[in-house]
Amino acid sequence: MDEAIKEIGAEQISKEFKEHSVAEFFKKNKQMLGLYGKVRSLTTIVHEYVTNSLDACEETNILPDIDVKIDELGREYYEVTVKDNGPGLTEETVGKALGKLLAGTKFHRMMQSRGQQGIGSSGCTMLSQMTTGKPIKVITGTGKNVISLELTIDPKRNEPKISNKKDIAKEFRGLAVQAKFKGVLYRDSEQGPLEYLRRTAIANPHAQINFRDPAGQKLKFKRTLNKVPERPKEVKPHPKGVTVDELITLSKYSDSKKVISFLKNDFDRMGQKSIETIKKKVEFDMNKDPKQLTWDEAEQVVTAFKEVDFISPSGDALRPIGQAHVENSLKSIVEPEFLTVLTRKPQVYSGGFPFQVEVAISYGGKAGRTVSGPEGNEKRLEIMRFANRAPLLFDAGNCAITKAVHSIDWKRYDIKDIDRAPVTVLVNFVSVHIPYTSAGKQAIADEDEVIEEIRLALMQSGRKAGNYIAGKRREKEKQLKRELFYKYIPEVVAALNSLTGANKADLKKKLEKMVLEKLRLEEAEDVEELNGKEAKAEKGEEDGKKAGKKAEDNN
Amino acid sequence: MDEAIKEIGAEQISKEFKEHSVAEFFKKNKQMLGLYGKVRSLTTIVHEYVTNSLDACEETNILPDIDVKIDELGREYYEVTVKDNGPGLTEETVGKALGKLLAGTKFHRMMQSRGQQGIGSSGCTMLSQMTTGKPIKVITGTGKNVISLELTIDPKRNEPKISNKKDIAKEFRGLAVQAKFKGVLYRDSEQGPLEYLRRTAIANPHAQINFRDPAGQKLKFKRTLNKVPERPKEVKPHPKGVTVDELITLSKYSDSKKVISFLKNDFDRMGQKSIETIKKKVEFDMNKDPKQLTWDEAEQVVTAFKEVDFISPSGDALRPIGQAHVENSLKSIVEPEFLTVLTRKPQVYSGGFPFQVEVAISYGGKAGRTVSGPEGNEKRLEIMRFANRAPLLFDAGNCAITKAVHSIDWKRYDIKDIDRAPVTVLVNFVSVHIPYTSAGKQAIADEDEVIEEIRLALMQSGRKAGNYIAGKRREKEKQLKRELFYKYIPEVVAALNSLTGANKADLKKKLEKMVLEKLRLEEAEDVEELNGKEAKAEKGEEDGKKAGKKAEDNN
Repeated sequence: MDEAIKEIGAEQISKEFKEHSVAEFFKKNKQMLGLYGKVRSLTTIVHEYVTNSLDACEETNILPDIDVKIDELGREYYEVTVKDNGPGLTEETVGKALGKLLAGTKFHRMMQSRGQQGIGSSGCTMLSQMTTGKPIKVITGTGKNVISLELTIDPKRNEPKISNKKDIAKEFRGLAVQAKFKGVLYRDSEQGPLEYLRRTAIANPHAQINFRDPAGQKLKFKRTLNKVPERPKEVKPHPKGVTVDELITLSKYSDSKKVISFLKNDFDRMGQKSIETIKKKVEFDMNKDPKQLTWDEAEQVVTAFKEVDFISPSGDALRPIGQAHVENSLKSIVEPEFLTVLTRKPQVYSGGFPFQVEVAISYGGKAGRTVSGPEGNEKRLEIMRFANRAPLLFDAGNCAITKAVHSIDWKRYDIKDIDRAPVTVLVNFVSVHIPYTSAGKQAIADEDEVIEEIRLALMQSGRKAGNYIAGKRREKEKQLKRELFYKYIPEVVAALNSLTGANKADLKKKLEKMVLEKLRLEEAEDVEELNGKEAKAEKGEEDGKKAGKKAEDNN
Repeated sequence: MDEAIKEIGAEQISKEFKEHSVAEFFKKNKQMLGLYGKVRSLTTIVHEYVTNSLDACEETNILPDIDVKIDELGREYYEVTVKDNGPGLTEETVGKALGKLLAGTKFHRMMQSRGQQGIGSSGCTMLSQMTTGKPIKVITGTGKNVISLELTIDPKRNEPKISNKKDIAKEFRGLAVQAKFKGVLYRDSEQGPLEYLRRTAIANPHAQINFRDPAGQKLKFKRTLNKVPERPKEVKPHPKGVTVDELITLSKYSDSKKVISFLKNDFDRMGQKSIETIKKKVEFDMNKDPKQLTWDEAEQVVTAFKEVDFISPSGDALRPIGQAHVENSLKSIVEPEFLTVLTRKPQVYSGGFPFQVEVAISYGGKAGRTVSGPEGNEKRLEIMRFANRAPLLFDAGNCAITKAVHSIDWKRYDIKDIDRAPVTVLVNFVSVHIPYTSAGKQAIADEDEVIEEIRLALMQSGRKAGNYIAGKRREKEKQLKRELFYKYIPEVVAALNSLTGANKADLKKKLEKMVLEKLRLEEAEDVEELNGKEAKAEKGEEDGKKAGKKAEDNN
């Protein structure tokens, strides 16, 4: 019997072999798009539309004005409307942008944007039709004309279906999308749409966002900066992170006739000096046609890259929030007692993708999450994660940012228990390509270079925070001591007076002078100790770096 | 100036609009396939090949014999070879199976298998060529012929490229895949290939797995069960979880002429009685052509489904490990002091997908993870997660199983601090479609029904474990008390004897009787208290269920 079944095995399997479209794939696996959980789904929908609006406005140098409305139509049944003042979408593009997966402008481009795959908003269209049977409604004004239309996706073919297209005679420039969803839920919680928009406003001070929640409450996140971030420039890959495969792919598309000119033209930061160094390290003639590069030769080039001291990648493609803006945002929202903000220089991770890390540590004031504990309200560590200025509210445990925060030995920075400290850590990771762990775009993969750079930024800022906290602690201790000393001075004066008969006022003066001197001496010791600690911390950082790397290897 | 930029906005965006293939997408986002982190990548590769081998063998009723070899070829450079005795792949299929994403036999099928998307092993082919420039090598023997070939993917077109195809004159039945990878690392760690295979053996006692690690060490995971699990049967969707969208899709493909016969033919557990109930609840004629069903009518049917008391889904499509086999595996590996195993009845989650949960709680013995603490070795909670019998080693924090375990109030079951208890919790989640959070297939999305069912299974088993642990604690306390009482009897006897002159032997006998009676009385009280506690726990479970649900809503 076994034999009979075996006999038809491979043939049978061959007959059953089918291909399916990427739309069918994500329709069946909508949780991979973050479209699961009632509250999470609704936040994800808002996220997809708002990031698209911000991207479109910034690309065309428009100060974003975004209206978000959420209406409750029934039990777990909502309508989401997002309207922007961006460039709009042409008739030819609107279907692909909102009704075809893996179509978009951002995939191959080497510059920072919030969207990158061309999946998110088409996924929302799919969820809308899956849960309500209804198309989404779109109004687009490109400056030439204004049209309204309805849109669904044919998942079998991954193609948009447009219906009810009409010209509209009113003035409108931008894009408005309106879609209905069932099985979702609005909550004003840490992971709800309102918190999402609040954090979007923190990271995008140039955007104005109006929000109307299902209860009709209106909220305005006002623009605090009247300047669109300069449009990032597309850059060439940085040689440091380039893989052999990418080098060969690039060489195939190059117009250069020689490997030398190919390297100069197609890579960032490739100067004549670098070329000379590489020349000495490879064992083939660099005047060769790049299209003829073998894998082995390309590998020699990549190995040589690793030994050249290239300048850090240019930041042309990157648009961090900027220290001043992060500072303003956090000061007004968190009102911390102490705040330190740091924007590091651009780095590069595997693939030659430039990236940059911004970190802010807020301490005291309203910093930290407030939870109610057995003894009243307590503070907990709050981590605000951003990727290309878009807030990440889910999948925290899987994210390089969270892992980096928890890998730091905060005791070094005078924070005994970081989880219970009144601290808000903000990390914004910007890159021309974010290595998300899932198409739902909520967690950054913990690639070696990524974790290490976030750790360095945290340690650098942590030290500053630590100095403040340690200083505060010492000041408090000194104050206690001083109070104690002063408290006993009158008693000691009285005792000495009755023993020796010396003048009370003189005794008091002398004793006070002694106390002051004693305290000054201790202060000097403190500074010395502090310096020693800093030196130790620097060293420890190096050790920590190694430890972090080791931990990473185990993933 | 703004206007000029705006003017070209929509047009420019339209011109830049591009489509890209799913292979390009996953090539650029390989972290979404779990192919990131040096150790993780290597484990993921082994996972993809081994699950494919197990699936192929089981489908054709072959007892799996799988050889896995990992050779170190250089620094972070390895070759992985996986050979099985399955049905092999025909010439027509081999390219699609290993060199085209979203192609396979498993996507639309309503039955349990490890693979489900047709992405994993093609992703490995892509990683191999991306990191080494080399094709993978394949030998396939289908019973008719044996051929060897080399294979790569053209990512632009998502199509396989086969080269070097040769007929081989030797006897071989099965599939052997050999692929080289750079940038990966072998580690004998909690997340390494060896641990992966060890857990595979636990959940698949019918499989024999031979492993040779890079150091040349050989390990054999012997088969302990000489029977292939019966091939699961394809089932129809269960009405309980079916969505309106799916009902309409199914109705389009149905051959039935009336809605009544469509429902009877295309759904699991749909008897005449259910049909009658549904008939009364909908407001249209169920003799209607199913192809003409409107969204509104389909919604009425789905709403009616929710009110009918359908029998639980059939387990025909599901193949849990089974209580006896889980017990055997854990007894031999964990050697626990106490073990409880539970296989729950099949349930259904959104989409009509049947699923089933198996849970085992081991206490004492070698249960739990051993970590070295400040006071020597300490025990920590160990959670072994499986999906369709495949081990899940990564992304634990994001997984419904981990979330369910941590949502339980273990104190109710006499486990004070579950994180530091000598406990191994095993959860195997089997389904015709696992709702993974990412294509890397390492975490199960926390859908309401999924979390709730895992929680129920854990509470049911937790109660048994709790009884044992509480019993042990009480026994220990009683023993202490008994010893104390007996210790003082001779003294009391002596005292009484000297006071009253009564016979010492008599006094001793009487006192001993008193002690025994006292202890018996306490025992009765214990039992009473225990019963009370259990009743409370039952109630608490209901409360907990609600709490769990509430927490879930916030996700």
